[in-house]
Amino acid sequence: MKKLLIISTGGTFNKIYNPKNGMLEIDKDATALKELASKWLCEFELITIINKDSLEMTNQDRLELLGTINQADYKHIIVVHGTDTMDVTAEYLAEGELDKCIVLTGAMVPYSIDPVEATANLASTYGYLQALEEDGVYIAMNGMIGDYKIIKKDREEGRFTL
Amino acid sequence: MKKLLIISTGGTFNKIYNPKNGMLEIDKDATALKELASKWLCEFELITIINKDSLEMTNQDRLELLGTINQADYKHIIVVHGTDTMDVTAEYLAEGELDKCIVLTGAMVPYSIDPVEATANLASTYGYLQALEEDGVYIAMNGMIGDYKIIKKDREEGRFTL
Amino acid sequence: MKKLLIISTGGTFNKIYNPKNGMLEIDKDATALKELASKWLCEFELITIINKDSLEMTNQDRLELLGTINQADYKHIIVVHGTDTMDVTAEYLAEGELDKCIVLTGAMVPYSIDPVEATANLASTYGYLQALEEDGVYIAMNGMIGDYKIIKKDREEGRFTL
Amino acid sequence: MKKLLIISTGGTFNKIYNPKNGMLEIDKDATALKELASKWLCEFELITIINKDSLEMTNQDRLELLGTINQADYKHIIVVHGTDTMDVTAEYLAEGELDKCIVLTGAMVPYSIDPVEATANLASTYGYLQALEEDGVYIAMNGMIGDYKIIKKDREEGRFTL
Repeated sequence: MKKLLIISTGGTFNKIYNPKNGMLEIDKDATALKELASKWLCEFELITIINKDSLEMTNQDRLELLGTINQADYKHIIVVHGTDTMDVTAEYLAEGELDKCIVLTGAMVPYSIDPVEATANLASTYGYLQALEEDGVYIAMNGMIGDYKIIKKDREEGRFTL
Repeated sequence: MKKLLIISTGGTFNKIYNPKNGMLEIDKDATALKELASKWLCEFELITIINKDSLEMTNQDRLELLGTINQADYKHIIVVHGTDTMDVTAEYLAEGELDKCIVLTGAMVPYSIDPVEATANLASTYGYLQALEEDGVYIAMNGMIGDYKIIKKDREEGRFTL
Repeated sequence: MKKLLIISTGGTFNKIYNPKNGMLEIDKDATALKELASKWLCEFELITIINKDSLEMTNQDRLELLGTINQADYKHIIVVHGTDTMDVTAEYLAEGELDKCIVLTGAMVPYSIDPVEATANLASTYGYLQALEEDGVYIAMNGMIGDYKIIKKDREEGRFTL
Repeated sequence: MKKLLIISTGGTFNKIYNPKNGMLEIDKDATALKELASKWLCEFELITIINKDSLEMTNQDRLELLGTINQADYKHIIVVHGTDTMDVTAEYLAEGELDKCIVLTGAMVPYSIDPVEATANLASTYGYLQALEEDGVYIAMNGMIGDYKIIKKDREEGRFTL
């Protein structure tokens, strides 16, 4: 198996409910992601950075992400990201022209509320990376997987489409 | 996206609890698989055949599976199969030398009891097939994905390994 | 079985995640509550009123609740209510001095996120009402069940205690 | 709160899936029951005895249960029992004419497969016992709660009725 780096940047995937204030909050330890990946996928390294909703992500944050990927000792990278600006970040990373295979994924609903969607997204990303041979920046959401330029979020439907 | 044929042959993946007799039984409609795939993966056709635990599968059954794949109008095939003889069936299919990409997957625990494992297996199979370029027979279980000859079930651990 | 009136006033119990805006919102149809009660409890009538977080509930709302209970053709009433001002509403209802058995319950975490807590609260309320012989206003949360004056929310712990 | 003794005798409630043999087996530690009760109900003592499907329960087993209840330092007892002979055991216990409040409950589907039904049964039993004033032997299943002589299992429907 290819060994992977998973970079969790925040977004919906790892949000958990805080009963004391009634809010969904980003779990900065990415516990759900970590358990899911270590139980059902292969060896990987996980780091968490930025930890924001993707609507709040700045180009400064994207530069941090690009730098992290560039310096990482891995060729195959999964970026867990909020869905609203996943395309913006993908384009930013593509302009970096790294010799790496980078796939962005995330979730429309937190793993803590619906583990199936988040698992389907992460695992299809993982499988895709295992067979992928061409460097590039890709998006994988609800079964739509491919070059970041062809996968778009349909805000009306709450899904990604070609 | 590549359009897929999913062939459900039985096994643990689709078992459901029957409260009247207290037994886990194979759901011949593969309802869980159908809902999962249609909600979170792309277009596919699903057929159910054989519907047995893999310990009860005969070479007659394997011939039926091989024939079904051979005649199918699809190049990319997911076979959902019980885990105990997944390797035997994979070898049988490989001897058929079809010009197809065939990935066998399944579940150690029914989707109705733990949806996460079954979803991780199916979705990683799906992602793998989307990027796969070489014909062959593959196995994908708990993150171990590759040529059927290198993925083995560790009965002690209840997991697949290299 | 005693036939019950269940009044859903909002609060956390029936909140569901809206993937389009990333917020938890009160389900005004109380779908989770309705399914739970009709599947696992006995005959009941369910009405939904007010539909607010309990921090936003006014004495005008409480008057509406009291009036609804007073006019209802039921002696045994379950009030599903947010936890933050459950005690205030209970006291308000008690001052109404109705010849009824009223039990307030709710959930710290939405049923859609953790069905077990919400189910435990509703079902213990239901069982209590079936055996209860004395009119009054009661609270039932996380196993603490009794006269509203003796059950308090411990905001530090996020639980109700004596 | 009344402090309770919970006696787990086996049955469906605590069954868990064994991935190595594909069978549902009685968890002799009653882990699910223990976690549920300690998280969402009040103080209790839990003991596990017999640990059989109720179809295999003998009068010798019932004598052991009766003796355990008789010697226990508790007046309020929850007996978790398989559903098929719950009525037989209830009658056996009633003939013991103990000065205790005993409620039998269980589950049609294991907690590990559907936690909602099992939780609803246990929690409604708990609530009922908290308000109950009259000694006797009772059954509480899917919202039907009362003297053991009036609650019957409808095997066709897979539910208990009056």
